[in-house]
Amino acid sequence: MQKTDWTQLWLKYEKKRDFGNGAYVAKAALKGFSAENRVIAHALEELNNGIYGMLGVTVRMVSDPGEASLVLVNSNDRKKEGFSLREQEGVLTLSAADENGLLYGVFHLLRLIAMEKPLEGIRQVVDPDDPLRMYDHWDNMDGSIERGYSGESFFFRQDEILVNRRTRDYARFVASIGINGVVINNVNVKQAATWLITERYFKVLAALSEIFADYGIRLYLSLNYAAPLELGGPDSADPLNPEVRHWWERKMEEVFAEIPNLGGFLVKADSEGRPGPFTYGRTQAEGANMLADAVKPFGGIIIWRCFVYNCTQDWRDQKTDRARAGYDNFIAQDGDYRDNVILQIKNGPMDFQIREPVSPLLGGLRRTNQMLEVQVAQEYTGQQIDICYLIPLFKEVLDFHTCCGEVCDTVSDLISGRTYGNTNTGIAAVCNTGDDGNWTGNDLAAANFYGFGRLAFCHGLDPEEIAEEWIRLSLSNDADVVEKVKGILLGSRRTYEKYTCPLGIGWMVAPNTHYGCSVDGYEYSRWGTYHRADHLGLGVDRSSRGTGYAQQYHEPNASMYNEPETCPEELLLFFHHVPYTHRLKSGKTLIQHIYDTHFEGVAEVEEMIRVWESLEGKVPESAYRTVRERFDRQLYNAREWRDQVNSYFYRKSGIEDEQGREIY
Amino acid sequence: MQKTDWTQLWLKYEKKRDFGNGAYVAKAALKGFSAENRVIAHALEELNNGIYGMLGVTVRMVSDPGEASLVLVNSNDRKKEGFSLREQEGVLTLSAADENGLLYGVFHLLRLIAMEKPLEGIRQVVDPDDPLRMYDHWDNMDGSIERGYSGESFFFRQDEILVNRRTRDYARFVASIGINGVVINNVNVKQAATWLITERYFKVLAALSEIFADYGIRLYLSLNYAAPLELGGPDSADPLNPEVRHWWERKMEEVFAEIPNLGGFLVKADSEGRPGPFTYGRTQAEGANMLADAVKPFGGIIIWRCFVYNCTQDWRDQKTDRARAGYDNFIAQDGDYRDNVILQIKNGPMDFQIREPVSPLLGGLRRTNQMLEVQVAQEYTGQQIDICYLIPLFKEVLDFHTCCGEVCDTVSDLISGRTYGNTNTGIAAVCNTGDDGNWTGNDLAAANFYGFGRLAFCHGLDPEEIAEEWIRLSLSNDADVVEKVKGILLGSRRTYEKYTCPLGIGWMVAPNTHYGCSVDGYEYSRWGTYHRADHLGLGVDRSSRGTGYAQQYHEPNASMYNEPETCPEELLLFFHHVPYTHRLKSGKTLIQHIYDTHFEGVAEVEEMIRVWESLEGKVPESAYRTVRERFDRQLYNAREWRDQVNSYFYRKSGIEDEQGREIY
Repeated sequence: MQKTDWTQLWLKYEKKRDFGNGAYVAKAALKGFSAENRVIAHALEELNNGIYGMLGVTVRMVSDPGEASLVLVNSNDRKKEGFSLREQEGVLTLSAADENGLLYGVFHLLRLIAMEKPLEGIRQVVDPDDPLRMYDHWDNMDGSIERGYSGESFFFRQDEILVNRRTRDYARFVASIGINGVVINNVNVKQAATWLITERYFKVLAALSEIFADYGIRLYLSLNYAAPLELGGPDSADPLNPEVRHWWERKMEEVFAEIPNLGGFLVKADSEGRPGPFTYGRTQAEGANMLADAVKPFGGIIIWRCFVYNCTQDWRDQKTDRARAGYDNFIAQDGDYRDNVILQIKNGPMDFQIREPVSPLLGGLRRTNQMLEVQVAQEYTGQQIDICYLIPLFKEVLDFHTCCGEVCDTVSDLISGRTYGNTNTGIAAVCNTGDDGNWTGNDLAAANFYGFGRLAFCHGLDPEEIAEEWIRLSLSNDADVVEKVKGILLGSRRTYEKYTCPLGIGWMVAPNTHYGCSVDGYEYSRWGTYHRADHLGLGVDRSSRGTGYAQQYHEPNASMYNEPETCPEELLLFFHHVPYTHRLKSGKTLIQHIYDTHFEGVAEVEEMIRVWESLEGKVPESAYRTVRERFDRQLYNAREWRDQVNSYFYRKSGIEDEQGREIY
Repeated sequence: MQKTDWTQLWLKYEKKRDFGNGAYVAKAALKGFSAENRVIAHALEELNNGIYGMLGVTVRMVSDPGEASLVLVNSNDRKKEGFSLREQEGVLTLSAADENGLLYGVFHLLRLIAMEKPLEGIRQVVDPDDPLRMYDHWDNMDGSIERGYSGESFFFRQDEILVNRRTRDYARFVASIGINGVVINNVNVKQAATWLITERYFKVLAALSEIFADYGIRLYLSLNYAAPLELGGPDSADPLNPEVRHWWERKMEEVFAEIPNLGGFLVKADSEGRPGPFTYGRTQAEGANMLADAVKPFGGIIIWRCFVYNCTQDWRDQKTDRARAGYDNFIAQDGDYRDNVILQIKNGPMDFQIREPVSPLLGGLRRTNQMLEVQVAQEYTGQQIDICYLIPLFKEVLDFHTCCGEVCDTVSDLISGRTYGNTNTGIAAVCNTGDDGNWTGNDLAAANFYGFGRLAFCHGLDPEEIAEEWIRLSLSNDADVVEKVKGILLGSRRTYEKYTCPLGIGWMVAPNTHYGCSVDGYEYSRWGTYHRADHLGLGVDRSSRGTGYAQQYHEPNASMYNEPETCPEELLLFFHHVPYTHRLKSGKTLIQHIYDTHFEGVAEVEEMIRVWESLEGKVPESAYRTVRERFDRQLYNAREWRDQVNSYFYRKSGIEDEQGREIY
């Protein structure tokens, strides 16, 4: 059954204090923009609704900008999709490069009003960092969500596509944080989803894409690489087979004729059982380029995932290293990809663990469009039961210096196009929404849903600032609420890391579900995910003496990671096998560090709960209750992690906790 | 889709050498039996088909026994359902106490002919040991089978009951080995299965029961204890609530009026989430007796499972012991149960592991009808991929002296009624069939399907003898085949035990699926299934110094199990936590024993494969191929077990293998 009730998240437009802001927005005029443009029209609608809701003022549109107190100006000073906001002599000027810029500027203005910030004297210039800012949904057409923790899909139900009021609200939310592309279906394209590029779904997809277009968003689809075989085309998916190429060309003509707003396709090929060019002895580039050629005439792009590794590894094999796979599979074809292909690279070399180094493909590739993929859905990071504010993690990734030899060498530089001047670049996140009333299961998980868009638009934002915005918009402008919730959010990743996996080791998690502790759960499996713990020590040797993964980085990163002495300690066990008796910089032994952090992690959850309880009555009641209930489950989970990890390593090492606490 | 092809298993009736057997069966007469009795009629039909198929002789019925060479006599010399077979002066006399005895005698005769045993001079007397000999199917009404490894159900599909030619063949097979009761639906009664006792299914259940009745089999059903609530009766299932009792009385009147051949019900209550009397603060006896009273007027019986334990245990808690639960939950009400209640007790105190002690409830209960439950379906014993001939295990259980203080104190004595003179006793096995063409997935697993019935009928049979029978009937009378397959079967349990769990520890298995190794898979879980391994040793202390489980046995068993010195070594880790350096009777340390047995287990599988390969062309081609393919999977599985178990304990103990073999 479809749920009919949902919240307005950070677009609540509830009554706010005015601080003189109302004066600016009473009379507005467009200059160089047409109200008939669909995006402008929806920006104005949003402006009207927001201003009326928050300030009780009805925005009156006037034709003469000289009479207006709010002027919305089309200006070519700004970068694509950028805007500026300036107050001078009682007139507020919102300048934007294009309709998307104007829409984002309007949402920005509404945000300031919602946060009760005075507009007087304001001078802000905001250009987006990433050309492409996308949410990827792993929604299946039966309504389930792969790695979904907030109910079922609101895009699909029983192999049908849903287009309704909720679709529009979703578009408003993501547009308000600057998202300009959305993939609606799971990258694992199976069953009905293969048929999305056929007659069966064209009409409804076109209708969905129109709603997205109202808010400057392009619709993207995940594609089944084996579609020719499954849809009755040629009996092959070989990218060099002329029949196959022809089939795709005809298919894309058909698709883009029926869904003109389509942005392109996301492809997971040769990965975890998905078909791909390797089946035919072709390279990833040959596969991607074939599709790129087919969508090129329609301005389409192909986003090709680099999550290609051997998922049937023998755990006995200590030479093969899954961490190496992305680089090894993609570096050789650097430069071979078409301009309208983007390689989408997960932030770490493994799979969205709570702590990983940055993928060496980022900065490794020099002549290929790159896009960063992060995961807002909390698959390995608490599943929206446990609080884990992920924006600091994403920020760390963006700030990482790849040392690729260019002046602009951070991940931020690479994916914004600053490093090599390319424009088909950007960032995508696996989304954490579902059809729960609060969209994200745990109300606090909406801070990630919100924050990703904000950070994607503006890499320079501080995660703390983003947290504060979200709290003010979603919970309260009350200073006590802001400070305390900020404390909870900003500490939450450190806490989660403490009670789960020490020093970058990862994967001590229940197989399949990926929630809850199972220290050996992935130790003797085929997934390439091992901790290699024995009675003396723990960790994976990925140095030049081990799998050589560290050498995939540019210098000086390669050397830094290669030695236990210089390796950042939070990644020590990712790169090195270390004795339990090894002294960390803190002076503690490794084993004592494991014990201590796990006890601390649980204590920190208990403290978070105390803080949250002090906010009862100060935050919306339903959010309070939902979060409180999830905290109980988080505490249970944290205790299980603490006791299982500590008991496991105690039983294995035989080394007592110095503080004599209870270990089983 | 229903499968339409299936084998005839051990009732193939293929051409056999005669050895003069044909002379006896050419002319047959009934004496004191009527050919109009449904069971007699089907016995004669089987006799005809079998004799014609195997010897090419048409059995002619004559009315004067004096003219017959085969006389089928109703005789009150025999125990209920028993028979004797005697040859004297060219006349074969099959005497039977009743129609079931005659049917079993006919199948026995056909078996001898199929095995090419000369009938001349034969003198055999066979009375069944167990009054009740049952197969329990854990088939769900959607067609799936809980713990099924041979395809889908042939009783159910999409919430409908199937009654067809396969039903009849199934009835013939199980009747031929002496089964007289069958539960067709899973003990976890959910969804549609709750409705089996309603109008919706009466007609088709009656039809099914008629087919069973043709072969002397009673139909039984698993019952949902919460049926009153779910079927619109009283809003309670409290056994002392008069409304509830009344509802059940009316319900049973209705059920037995519609399905007069029904034998009664199997109930899993208060177990693993199933509802039961504990919900209402009542005892198991109060729950069982209420149902017993309701079915009493119709001669029905209630089989009540003793598989009641806390399945949400805290793994940190070393006091609670799941092994104790059956005894602790049932011993106090000994003597409180009605005569038509039977407590069904799993062979071991845990759950069908490859090695467990015998449940102390068997022999603990003195004034309660008892039935032994074993599992022919290879849930924990290789899932019909790995070969594991289970009859020796069942035989060990039957031969166990409970030392209950009576002369007849073995499990065999208890469940046959010899100990206390009761008649509602017996044995049940969870069946291993499905709709695969060969019925049991692995053709060799049919030896268990066959063997259980034979052993249930006659506890005195040697597992080797049963194996030989099955091989001759199913594969070949060729001496080389008989000897080699017997070797494979008789060694298979030892081999499986070697490469899986050492010395009775159990549970080192993948959670949920229960196939494949996961040493810690159940170590930090809620199921009460722990090995408690640390860097010094392994095993669960169930002595008087530990959980006290050993004290649930009568003396001298209690003392024997209580001390590591006297505890049978194959159960050492079940009863004791033992250092890796402990010397076993072999002179080996425990850790070396673990290493050695695991290497041996794999070597034995390799040897079994070599032996099987030498039989190509000598056994039916399809069986050869299927078994050969399963052997590949068994070998893979055995190697995984070997390497994971050895690596796990090597990494934990740090103790080297004396032989320096490869451990990871």
